[in-house]
Amino acid sequence: MSAPPGFRIDARAGRARAGVLRTAHGDVRTPAFVPLATAGAVKSLQASEVEALGFDMVLGNTFHLFLRPGHESVARMGGLHEFMGWRRPIITDSGGFQVFSMGHGTVAEELKGNRSGPRSDGRVLAIEEEGVRFRSYLDGEERFMGPETSLEVQAALGSDLALAFDECTPFHVSRDYTASSTERTHRWLDRCVDWHSGNAPEGQLLYGIVQGGVHDDLRERSAQRVAEAGVGGVAIGGSLGREKAQMRAVLDVTTRSLPEELPRHGLGIGDPDDLLAGVELGIDTFDCATPTRLARHGTALVPDPARRWRLDVTRASENERRDPLVPGCPCPACERHTRGYLHYLARAKELTAVRLLVMHNLTFMRKLMEGLREAVTGNRLDRYGEALARGVAPY
Amino acid sequence: MSAPPGFRIDARAGRARAGVLRTAHGDVRTPAFVPLATAGAVKSLQASEVEALGFDMVLGNTFHLFLRPGHESVARMGGLHEFMGWRRPIITDSGGFQVFSMGHGTVAEELKGNRSGPRSDGRVLAIEEEGVRFRSYLDGEERFMGPETSLEVQAALGSDLALAFDECTPFHVSRDYTASSTERTHRWLDRCVDWHSGNAPEGQLLYGIVQGGVHDDLRERSAQRVAEAGVGGVAIGGSLGREKAQMRAVLDVTTRSLPEELPRHGLGIGDPDDLLAGVELGIDTFDCATPTRLARHGTALVPDPARRWRLDVTRASENERRDPLVPGCPCPACERHTRGYLHYLARAKELTAVRLLVMHNLTFMRKLMEGLREAVTGNRLDRYGEALARGVAPY
Repeated sequence: MSAPPGFRIDARAGRARAGVLRTAHGDVRTPAFVPLATAGAVKSLQASEVEALGFDMVLGNTFHLFLRPGHESVARMGGLHEFMGWRRPIITDSGGFQVFSMGHGTVAEELKGNRSGPRSDGRVLAIEEEGVRFRSYLDGEERFMGPETSLEVQAALGSDLALAFDECTPFHVSRDYTASSTERTHRWLDRCVDWHSGNAPEGQLLYGIVQGGVHDDLRERSAQRVAEAGVGGVAIGGSLGREKAQMRAVLDVTTRSLPEELPRHGLGIGDPDDLLAGVELGIDTFDCATPTRLARHGTALVPDPARRWRLDVTRASENERRDPLVPGCPCPACERHTRGYLHYLARAKELTAVRLLVMHNLTFMRKLMEGLREAVTGNRLDRYGEALARGVAPY
Repeated sequence: MSAPPGFRIDARAGRARAGVLRTAHGDVRTPAFVPLATAGAVKSLQASEVEALGFDMVLGNTFHLFLRPGHESVARMGGLHEFMGWRRPIITDSGGFQVFSMGHGTVAEELKGNRSGPRSDGRVLAIEEEGVRFRSYLDGEERFMGPETSLEVQAALGSDLALAFDECTPFHVSRDYTASSTERTHRWLDRCVDWHSGNAPEGQLLYGIVQGGVHDDLRERSAQRVAEAGVGGVAIGGSLGREKAQMRAVLDVTTRSLPEELPRHGLGIGDPDDLLAGVELGIDTFDCATPTRLARHGTALVPDPARRWRLDVTRASENERRDPLVPGCPCPACERHTRGYLHYLARAKELTAVRLLVMHNLTFMRKLMEGLREAVTGNRLDRYGEALARGVAPY
């Protein structure tokens, strides 16, 4: 590694940026989408396949890996890269999203739709200044996670980008609750920066998380506070509103309040139009469960903005269709298989259906992000946005 | 295709043979193991991966494809090869095993262990000279399958090797029942041969099935009867006994009664020592659910005869192990991942675990059959059997 970990902006188009995030495990070309390797594997794929799909980085879930197999266990296995056989950069989330999803109940549905997870069994016992006590959804044991715990777990995992511990406030709580929660998140951030400066693995970048709900002034204050904390990057978390216009307004005011030089990560943003908007507003990396979660439920991403880019392959009209999902798509599902076959496999709940749809959806995301990167570099993001809206991009 | 479909023996070692099964979709090098593509897909794999694993042929299940998506539907999609994107030979079973499993209750457990299937919901309504009436496990509708139906379905699927409709008699029925059932199977075979001669797709070979339970005289008579029926190959089906010695005795008497020139398929034979025995007795191809079914339940095939070549990767002693399942195994699980990671994935019920274990187990089978082929060709089957018993082969 010649250059130390950090971020370099190579091109701009309005507020959008294209660049390179340098990490101890290699470069991430931005803007980039980061597939979820929630529990140490991208659903149904092996690490070599995620590489072959063209992704530079995956996201590992601190909360899930903390509970199983445990961060000490992953450390004894050589760290998360070695454990899962992934040789490229890894970002780990803070654990806050999953911990607080158990407490707030609806935050997960609100932000990311219905995801399988800890909500049914685990629960939050207490949210205190020190951190959060909760019951594990695996064994019912009482566990604790605070800022130092989260960073300690992420250090043991050995991720390239670590996220500071935050409370992820949902939409339905009051402005007062959001305000005081955001302030506590800032105090937690200071503790994270402290712990990280003394204990982080070499080369690990720490991202602070901007909260503040849908309130402009809280978002502005949070963005400034995070930027002043001495972090290597900024993530934008929490409720981004009930609909897309509000989400864009929140991202707009947040990114306006951030310094140019820090890399920015948008948590839980994955719809094609949201990715376009996020890139336009100067966000560099994104993660979202949508592409893999849709695949598990029989839905493919297709260039069809009128249907929110979603195609339910189990619908009756897909039966016996002999054309591919997307003509010209280079994924294994489209290269060799028909919509009719995918329809049949998904209805029969064959594992092969999940796998083919995961490969397809991630290929769609890879092509979309390639298109966005090239559009920023070529200063033609408007035209790319039009192509996306007409269903021409990303193919 | 220069030569018409058929079988050519290239080498012999005692009663064992190595050769080539020529089909309309290419050659199958024998002896060969045939992975199950039960419902139009090898569990968790896409067709290109099964090719890459080195298999020449897969087995499609007539019964399952008859019920869903229906053979007419597969035909409209261009036949089973086109439907599943598999370009090499396909053998289809007769449907008899699954139909009668519903009636006899225990035949599936007896022969092949606990497999997921129709037993819980579907059931046999009547077994008559004409065929079998049963309730579909999918929708409860009454359906019928007889010799002509089975062949009609297999013609619509367009398989390269079709199996005649048979009653698969379990171990627990009386000798009298087995005798009369086997005679009916012979009458059904004649109807199959009749239907096939007038209606089969070009190049499809018809295999008759030898039944007769564990009774030497019934097996001998059945073998002679099938051989005289004018078939292109012979499959050995039904109960092969309660333990391995009895199974070998049944296979011994059966293969002794078969003509040399016809290719022979062993139904439901998949344990490494059984494959060795089967090859020694002159069986050319084998299918079995074991490699893929074990994978779905977290078990890997390893060169460990003392444990029946099985390793349960979920067992506690696999935790945090940093070595591969089998050093030197060229499968994606062993090339890049550790036992500890597989242990974790299997316990967490990640789809990636199933997939990696399916790839590993099929790689084990491919290497085993390569070893057996080379041992027959080199006339050193005894030495190969010793290597297998010492845990040296197939790696």
